[in-house]
Amino acid sequence: MAQVQEEVQLLGVGGSPFVRRIQIALKLKGVHYTYIEENLRNKSDLLLKFNPIHKKVPVFFHNGKPLAESLVILEYIDETWENYPIFPQQPYEKALARFWSKFIDDKCLPAISKAAWTVNKEEREKGIEESLQALQFLENELKHKFFGGVNINIVDIAASYLAFWLPLVEEAIGLKFLSSGKFPKLYKWSQEFINHPIVKANLPPKEGILGFFKSRYAALTTASK
Amino acid sequence: MAQVQEEVQLLGVGGSPFVRRIQIALKLKGVHYTYIEENLRNKSDLLLKFNPIHKKVPVFFHNGKPLAESLVILEYIDETWENYPIFPQQPYEKALARFWSKFIDDKCLPAISKAAWTVNKEEREKGIEESLQALQFLENELKHKFFGGVNINIVDIAASYLAFWLPLVEEAIGLKFLSSGKFPKLYKWSQEFINHPIVKANLPPKEGILGFFKSRYAALTTASK
Repeated sequence: MAQVQEEVQLLGVGGSPFVRRIQIALKLKGVHYTYIEENLRNKSDLLLKFNPIHKKVPVFFHNGKPLAESLVILEYIDETWENYPIFPQQPYEKALARFWSKFIDDKCLPAISKAAWTVNKEEREKGIEESLQALQFLENELKHKFFGGVNINIVDIAASYLAFWLPLVEEAIGLKFLSSGKFPKLYKWSQEFINHPIVKANLPPKEGILGFFKSRYAALTTASK
Repeated sequence: MAQVQEEVQLLGVGGSPFVRRIQIALKLKGVHYTYIEENLRNKSDLLLKFNPIHKKVPVFFHNGKPLAESLVILEYIDETWENYPIFPQQPYEKALARFWSKFIDDKCLPAISKAAWTVNKEEREKGIEESLQALQFLENELKHKFFGGVNINIVDIAASYLAFWLPLVEEAIGLKFLSSGKFPKLYKWSQEFINHPIVKANLPPKEGILGFFKSRYAALTTASK
């Protein structure tokens, strides 16, 4: 249970889909928190001290106790603040939600990353194929407005990247995934998700992210010439 | 809660550390189950039907409902059968246990795999360095007899590979990790763990695993010549 006087802090960078997961969950639950912007090009002592293993954001602090890894933080948040549950209540449905969140992190995002940011043409083609396959599994899994049903749940939050960041990647690199017409349910979901009032209010400005992806792609294609 | 009449089945292969995780947890909790041996060289319809995404073992069935991914299955087991809890009860300690289990799967085991089974010398050296670093983090984290304290918990179960399989990898490939003398606490833990009566009764015969690792290494070094 949440304590009466409590301190909630989040160390992050504005453009990170993993940090946004935490912000969306906290906002859905109405938990007040202090946000601390990290500089990943010159990592702070705070980051290096409290996430010495991964040296990545988000790092979450509850009454001074640190936690890293976004899916781990999301489970903690859901167990600590009961308002607006983001995990299903029944063990089997909860396990499936964990399975799909893990699938997004372990299979779907690495495949997209390989498709988008690999110089080697063969690897890149393999990445595209794996991405389409992973998105198809999610397309088949989507039975309602959200993965969570009528409400956003952990799987929707874990899939934030697909709804908001992926279209910007597509624009930057000239490949089509969500907008290919192959995944109509997933595309519709992405629109519902980014237009959900709390999600919408907690996404970064598009221009910065798109600019970052364009530069990254330019650097990549220049390097490979 | 577990139902009065229930059916628990596990699809696995005898040598898999991921399948053994489930067997150890079920035995610790005293849950009766039926074991079905899979053939990974000629995957069964059961495997392909119920784990179409990863096509890997373990696949766990509770009253016919399938689940894949060992850490997901372990959480489900702990939420379903309360006897001998394998996760801490407090949200923060529970989150840390999830963090370390995830660390073992995401960082530690892939590093060891890279160190042991990579042909490219540079990649292999990098794998060795990453393995030593990952083991050092675990060494620092180990404060008691087990990661779980006086009892085995999820982190110990997730780390099974390090206690039983890693020494056999070391023997097969002629590299030293746990037996290097650099990780005295982890080494002591590994002995406590494999000699715990329930763990001991649920490990595969050493010879088969060692033979498999030796063949794998021979094939690798032959291929690289």
